[in-house]
Amino acid sequence: MENIGFLGLGIMGSAMANNLIKAGFKVTVWNRSPEKCAELAALGAQVAATPAEVTSSCRISFAMLADPEAAQAVCFGPGGALEGIGAGRGYVDMSTVDAATAREIGQAVCDKGGRFLEAPVSGSKKPAQDGTLIILAAGDRGLFDEALPYFEKMGKKSLFLGEVGRGAQMKLIVNMTMGGMMAIFCEALALTAKAGLDTADLLEVIDAGAMANPMFKMKGAQIAAGAFDPAFPLKHMQKDLRLAVALGDALDQPLFSAAAANESFKKAKALGFSDQDFCGVFQAISS
Amino acid sequence: MENIGFLGLGIMGSAMANNLIKAGFKVTVWNRSPEKCAELAALGAQVAATPAEVTSSCRISFAMLADPEAAQAVCFGPGGALEGIGAGRGYVDMSTVDAATAREIGQAVCDKGGRFLEAPVSGSKKPAQDGTLIILAAGDRGLFDEALPYFEKMGKKSLFLGEVGRGAQMKLIVNMTMGGMMAIFCEALALTAKAGLDTADLLEVIDAGAMANPMFKMKGAQIAAGAFDPAFPLKHMQKDLRLAVALGDALDQPLFSAAAANESFKKAKALGFSDQDFCGVFQAISS
Amino acid sequence: MENIGFLGLGIMGSAMANNLIKAGFKVTVWNRSPEKCAELAALGAQVAATPAEVTSSCRISFAMLADPEAAQAVCFGPGGALEGIGAGRGYVDMSTVDAATAREIGQAVCDKGGRFLEAPVSGSKKPAQDGTLIILAAGDRGLFDEALPYFEKMGKKSLFLGEVGRGAQMKLIVNMTMGGMMAIFCEALALTAKAGLDTADLLEVIDAGAMANPMFKMKGAQIAAGAFDPAFPLKHMQKDLRLAVALGDALDQPLFSAAAANESFKKAKALGFSDQDFCGVFQAISS
Amino acid sequence: MENIGFLGLGIMGSAMANNLIKAGFKVTVWNRSPEKCAELAALGAQVAATPAEVTSSCRISFAMLADPEAAQAVCFGPGGALEGIGAGRGYVDMSTVDAATAREIGQAVCDKGGRFLEAPVSGSKKPAQDGTLIILAAGDRGLFDEALPYFEKMGKKSLFLGEVGRGAQMKLIVNMTMGGMMAIFCEALALTAKAGLDTADLLEVIDAGAMANPMFKMKGAQIAAGAFDPAFPLKHMQKDLRLAVALGDALDQPLFSAAAANESFKKAKALGFSDQDFCGVFQAISS
Repeated sequence: MENIGFLGLGIMGSAMANNLIKAGFKVTVWNRSPEKCAELAALGAQVAATPAEVTSSCRISFAMLADPEAAQAVCFGPGGALEGIGAGRGYVDMSTVDAATAREIGQAVCDKGGRFLEAPVSGSKKPAQDGTLIILAAGDRGLFDEALPYFEKMGKKSLFLGEVGRGAQMKLIVNMTMGGMMAIFCEALALTAKAGLDTADLLEVIDAGAMANPMFKMKGAQIAAGAFDPAFPLKHMQKDLRLAVALGDALDQPLFSAAAANESFKKAKALGFSDQDFCGVFQAISS
Repeated sequence: MENIGFLGLGIMGSAMANNLIKAGFKVTVWNRSPEKCAELAALGAQVAATPAEVTSSCRISFAMLADPEAAQAVCFGPGGALEGIGAGRGYVDMSTVDAATAREIGQAVCDKGGRFLEAPVSGSKKPAQDGTLIILAAGDRGLFDEALPYFEKMGKKSLFLGEVGRGAQMKLIVNMTMGGMMAIFCEALALTAKAGLDTADLLEVIDAGAMANPMFKMKGAQIAAGAFDPAFPLKHMQKDLRLAVALGDALDQPLFSAAAANESFKKAKALGFSDQDFCGVFQAISS
Repeated sequence: MENIGFLGLGIMGSAMANNLIKAGFKVTVWNRSPEKCAELAALGAQVAATPAEVTSSCRISFAMLADPEAAQAVCFGPGGALEGIGAGRGYVDMSTVDAATAREIGQAVCDKGGRFLEAPVSGSKKPAQDGTLIILAAGDRGLFDEALPYFEKMGKKSLFLGEVGRGAQMKLIVNMTMGGMMAIFCEALALTAKAGLDTADLLEVIDAGAMANPMFKMKGAQIAAGAFDPAFPLKHMQKDLRLAVALGDALDQPLFSAAAANESFKKAKALGFSDQDFCGVFQAISS
Repeated sequence: MENIGFLGLGIMGSAMANNLIKAGFKVTVWNRSPEKCAELAALGAQVAATPAEVTSSCRISFAMLADPEAAQAVCFGPGGALEGIGAGRGYVDMSTVDAATAREIGQAVCDKGGRFLEAPVSGSKKPAQDGTLIILAAGDRGLFDEALPYFEKMGKKSLFLGEVGRGAQMKLIVNMTMGGMMAIFCEALALTAKAGLDTADLLEVIDAGAMANPMFKMKGAQIAAGAFDPAFPLKHMQKDLRLAVALGDALDQPLFSAAAANESFKKAKALGFSDQDFCGVFQAISS
């Protein structure tokens, strides 16, 4: 069995690497702050000192970094992943980055004879732990096929979407849908309360019908409890809505609902709710 | 076992009465065009010549009429339900009417010593057949408790929401949520197509995640197939969005997303899609 | 010279009647609270005890009442205008009422052999005093021609728009435009301030260019000063936006901008600014 | 009298240079395609072979280029303006560019010891010819004071707004206001037509009241005539709305009306009206 690499052991990454180890794969891990590696080492992971050490010793390396800046630093920095990339080696960046960053990293990997896949995920902490993420891959088709056995331990569904950049776009559209659903859901909750009806009744009715979905169920309970701890921070949702509306601009696709939702999330940011969960937009809508 | 009445045997009413008969209840039915009664008579229903004949012979009568005008005609017309209402008799109007109509009928029933419940339903043809409607009742609490055994055969969930008018309001808010979800869903589908991505991939990703819901699954397939036969006509959805926005006006609750969705449905009406299913709004959004 | 009548001496009506008297016309006035009549009597007006006394003694009577309820009470109440209407007498209702109220009053006047004109005005206190209102008349064309010499003293422009109801509709569309302009203007002012630019500079630039208009000039200064005394109350603007959006609903005309403006004015009402001037919407937009 | 320079003789630039020459100033001109220089030479202008020749021989040089790319090429290209900049020489870029481009050019000019002013204008062809532009200057205050005598021949109002980038921002906000006003104006026109009222009446009413402005007067006539020849192309308006909404994103200023207007202009682009005048958005709104 071949060794695989994993770069980045934050909330998402450590859960994902954990699932790979539990499935019996031999995993070499690296993280910026080395203490995060200890827990996985205890489970059998090898620990590397630099990203380059990982990529030079593994046929396929996965990366899960916090944002585009981190993804670039880990790839291009001294001792970075790129230094270890050689002919045929695969680099699978699962971080959420914009299409331009994905293309830049992908090009650099290919220029060194490697193969590249962007593979952002839909789903946050809980699905990462449960191995039920949805993986939106794009880039090298052969690498996708090779990576599938690993994806299957991290997620419940993996799609191959074409050339690099497609994964980022699909994720944007998925999050735009989520933001729009949250906005109308919060308007419905606010209207229910203003009408003197019980929001618990609304949640029950919705949950019993064709609109029933896990997000409304979970977030509805959080909103009712006024619990806005971030699983997916509001400011990130607003950023995704902004980028989705901009994508519509580039493609001449009017998006009146997404644009209205974007403004409601901006209002929530202006009111100081940036770092709350994105369902915190309720407070801007109901005030 | 007591006799119960059922007035109105359209697509919804005949399915609902059918479920009552199949459950072993003795049901007396009436319909404007009598041929609709034959099928139920074959199953064991008694057939009455007028609504008054039903209400005067049954302790509880259910009505399921097409719109406020029909609900009023069946109640107030010659030989109408009101004529048969006597002390203690229950009248449960499950038609979708506005709060004012519900209150008018309710008042008239009470003035004759009867008891009244408005009980609009969430769900269309299929849930009516399957007995999985959601029943939004309001009015006489005692009558609600008495009607529960019958509701349980017609629906999978029954809520009692308070005074007459609350049922209509809750249904409006539920439908507003549905309209808003459909608008953002169609924007996502249109953007996916313009980006050159596969809408089937979007549907698969959504269906695998926290937003997964029966409505997106069913309507997504219909939209992909260009099949817009009406289960819930677009013009009715636009009407409900309009009324929900007006409710927000009355209560000073801003509804930016619902208002934007309302305009998209108006655009669809202007383009000639009034009588299609409400997911036909896709054609206005993607054009 | 014939006598003309004037019913309703509020802020608008007294200024308008004043202009008629100053122009040399013989005017008989009536007002609900008689003390308002004294000022005009001092200028030469005759004072009547009831609306009927006015309409029965004047060939043409003008009415300027606060709202539809007042317009109906003055027409239909005991001693009301309708009682004095006889063959050929003209009744010109300049109150701002909905089309249905205008039609109801118009029908009653015609049924008694009289002639009717609805004639709502565009413009508030200052134009009423200056005789520079814009008069949006509809109904009896002959009466319009006869009323023109009087209109010319009250306004600077008088349009005849067709059948009764057209005046109310035109006024609604004019006010919708005003509300939409105010919403984008306030967004521009808020954005200017957030960008650290000087709003006085924005006002100067706009006032120097193709967008320059008296409303932005006057309201811009008020907003800068935080002076929101009502010339045209915010709640009335929101009502007109709501009715204009509803007119769009009835006519299948999507109105995305008007709908967004309507929600911003609703937000301002929710924040407690209903009775301020409509430019007070700035506070909801900038907060 | 000192020599001044003028770079870029397109529709705007040639009209502006013309006004400087007519005012008696000695002007040295340059244009990419030299034939444009002939007309101005006939009026007394000196013609230079390169931008550097202009900037090295004039104490102040004005530039009016089509877009950021042209502005950069004329400044940084071989024989470009930058080559001729020496200690104390002033460079006034009146092109419409983004803040980043303005800062880049400004920095380069200052690095060579020169002084820089961005000075985008509000107003198109006609005001350029009439010398009634509005000049939105930012950067070197001393250079602004020195340039004022020239600005006064090109425009009717010149504002100094602070550091470089402020001019571009102010112009964006001004254009956002224009786009929002156009959107609500077109909705009013479309609603008027659908109601069976005469749009000429609406134009007359608006023109007589507090909203009266040259833009509605001119564009209203164009829309009525279906004449959409571009004075300010629709795609540029949409770009400015997009950038203004993005500025609101950066500053957490919700802009519901601007966002809705942006989507209507996107719809117009999707329908193929990109190269028409921005009032062509009427066709997207009324369809």
